[in-house]
Amino acid sequence: MTERHVRLDVEALETFCREILMLEGLSDEDAQSAATVLVAADVRGIASHGVGRLSRYVKGLQAGLMRPNAPIEVVSDTPTALVLDAHGAMGAPVSVRAMKAVIDKAHTAGAAFGCVRDSNHFGIAGYYALLAVEHGMLGIAMTNTAALAVPTFGRQVMFGTNPLAFAAPAHKERAFLLDMSTTVVTRGKLELYDRMDKELPPGWAVDRHGRTARQTGSLLEDMFYRVGGGILPLGGEGEEMSGHKGYGLAVMVDILCGVLAGAGFGPQLADLADSSTRVGHFFGALRIDAFRDLDAFRRDMDRMLQDLRNTPTAEGQERVYYAGLKEFEHEEECRRRGVPVLAKSYDVLCQIGHDHGVAAPPVLSEEDL
Amino acid sequence: MTERHVRLDVEALETFCREILMLEGLSDEDAQSAATVLVAADVRGIASHGVGRLSRYVKGLQAGLMRPNAPIEVVSDTPTALVLDAHGAMGAPVSVRAMKAVIDKAHTAGAAFGCVRDSNHFGIAGYYALLAVEHGMLGIAMTNTAALAVPTFGRQVMFGTNPLAFAAPAHKERAFLLDMSTTVVTRGKLELYDRMDKELPPGWAVDRHGRTARQTGSLLEDMFYRVGGGILPLGGEGEEMSGHKGYGLAVMVDILCGVLAGAGFGPQLADLADSSTRVGHFFGALRIDAFRDLDAFRRDMDRMLQDLRNTPTAEGQERVYYAGLKEFEHEEECRRRGVPVLAKSYDVLCQIGHDHGVAAPPVLSEEDL
Repeated sequence: MTERHVRLDVEALETFCREILMLEGLSDEDAQSAATVLVAADVRGIASHGVGRLSRYVKGLQAGLMRPNAPIEVVSDTPTALVLDAHGAMGAPVSVRAMKAVIDKAHTAGAAFGCVRDSNHFGIAGYYALLAVEHGMLGIAMTNTAALAVPTFGRQVMFGTNPLAFAAPAHKERAFLLDMSTTVVTRGKLELYDRMDKELPPGWAVDRHGRTARQTGSLLEDMFYRVGGGILPLGGEGEEMSGHKGYGLAVMVDILCGVLAGAGFGPQLADLADSSTRVGHFFGALRIDAFRDLDAFRRDMDRMLQDLRNTPTAEGQERVYYAGLKEFEHEEECRRRGVPVLAKSYDVLCQIGHDHGVAAPPVLSEEDL
Repeated sequence: MTERHVRLDVEALETFCREILMLEGLSDEDAQSAATVLVAADVRGIASHGVGRLSRYVKGLQAGLMRPNAPIEVVSDTPTALVLDAHGAMGAPVSVRAMKAVIDKAHTAGAAFGCVRDSNHFGIAGYYALLAVEHGMLGIAMTNTAALAVPTFGRQVMFGTNPLAFAAPAHKERAFLLDMSTTVVTRGKLELYDRMDKELPPGWAVDRHGRTARQTGSLLEDMFYRVGGGILPLGGEGEEMSGHKGYGLAVMVDILCGVLAGAGFGPQLADLADSSTRVGHFFGALRIDAFRDLDAFRRDMDRMLQDLRNTPTAEGQERVYYAGLKEFEHEEECRRRGVPVLAKSYDVLCQIGHDHGVAAPPVLSEEDL
């Protein structure tokens, strides 16, 4: 299914988002952080986390669900650990701040970690993990989310799609950047199949009884109102395809982002229309040169990633990727030709711009993608 | 399919393994470590990593593939990072040493990590992660393995089953202990299906052409000789069930255990009859009280784990577990009733005992499991 997209200049789109967010009360710096993370998602081809969310952010700020100038409280601060309480601030600005502080600590201590609690949607986890790579470090970023997924053998949502990201620098190759939800799919994918009235592949979700869900039918509503049913962890239904492993990974993320942060976790986190999710995040950075020479590490990474890129393909397949490669290639195209945004989302941006007296970035080209 | 098992006293079995390994040249301390880790696998119900491997270890030591008294070299040592070169030693003793050193460092620094290179099979990853839990820390352990798995869209083995373990303490509940290979299944499972002449579920492996493998047929041999074909990453074939996520996780483990350790990685690691794998490991420990009060953390963990245990089950299911629970329950039964060991494996233990002049532990009971 192709849909109409418009291409927009990356910097113009960032500037637009920044200006809107400043008009909604964010400081220049925070608005810049939020705009950068938002546009980075579109640029990396993860439109579900991109500027299509700006209207939700604006509404959240206007409704007070996200607090534009919430004081960021330092709850704990040691040479290797940091805990921030965001007190309901937007997710991205406090997360950029946390990850940068973690990187600073890791410069001195060799390794450092940070938790953020009482925060909101922070965009793509990969953005934060990648910040460490520029400093010759391994980067880690995770967040818990509203509960949308069921445990293996369960039928009630007990944790979120809980993404985790891990980044490692190479030399000539792009960085290795894993950025994945720990469920088979995210809710957006179910919503897409619902709109297309398409049957779900077995192993994506279970219904209110815990049976394989093939029709979205009432599933999304049942999940929302916690009647039962939900998305399955990575590995799918039961144990045959190792769904219990994805289940374990999702809970691990919840422990690091929720329990360790002293934040909400599990089914406490709900995505209801009239309340904010107030999620927690976890960030980490490890200096590579504490273990071995950084250049030697980078060269070995090149060798590993080249070998993966060049390995023979399965019958009928064109390419083997490594984590992040597809997204880096998408980014390069976006920087050259502009970033594609759904025409429908662009209309919303124009409306937001109109409401705020800010001109939306001009359309560079249109195409069906 | 049930098989004849004998139950043995846990301590007697450990003592037996320790004595055999000492007779093969290991120091008392190293033999004790190796025996403890080996028996811990059986006790936790992971027989593939248990005393059934003792004969392989004995042969490996006798053939010089594993060096009983290899000097452990400290390659890097900072307050938060440690790199050891095992110079071909047995995996478990050097891993126990590394994890303990990492925990010591974390006591002082708050967080610490260690790599071991040029090592051998280290047993169950969960054993090491769990060591941190006794110290009020989060524990991490990983290892790379001989290449047995294919990347998404590939058909040649490019990395191992690369397990990762993560442990977190609770208070009244058992610890959360995730211990998982990052592939859908391990080679042992394919071998089992081969012996039973049973069709493989789609999504476990691909054949030499990269097509879905339903018959083991020549698959195991094709994998061994690198003709093509291999196990699929967690998430299975292609991207529909998110196999690319398991692929990314497996490579992440390879980066931490191989590249960061300055050790072998990817298809360099082969499990050939006449050579040793020489794998790398990665260990980590994070002090929880650097982030929040340890007791508060434990109480929240109790709440999380109780909620997961008590969540309603899917139709037809009896229980929902959390990671590690099944294994802890197995352990308790083993401490009470003895640990079950395959009758066939017990015969091998008796033979090893006979060869070394050490009496095998007496059989407590027999049953079909």
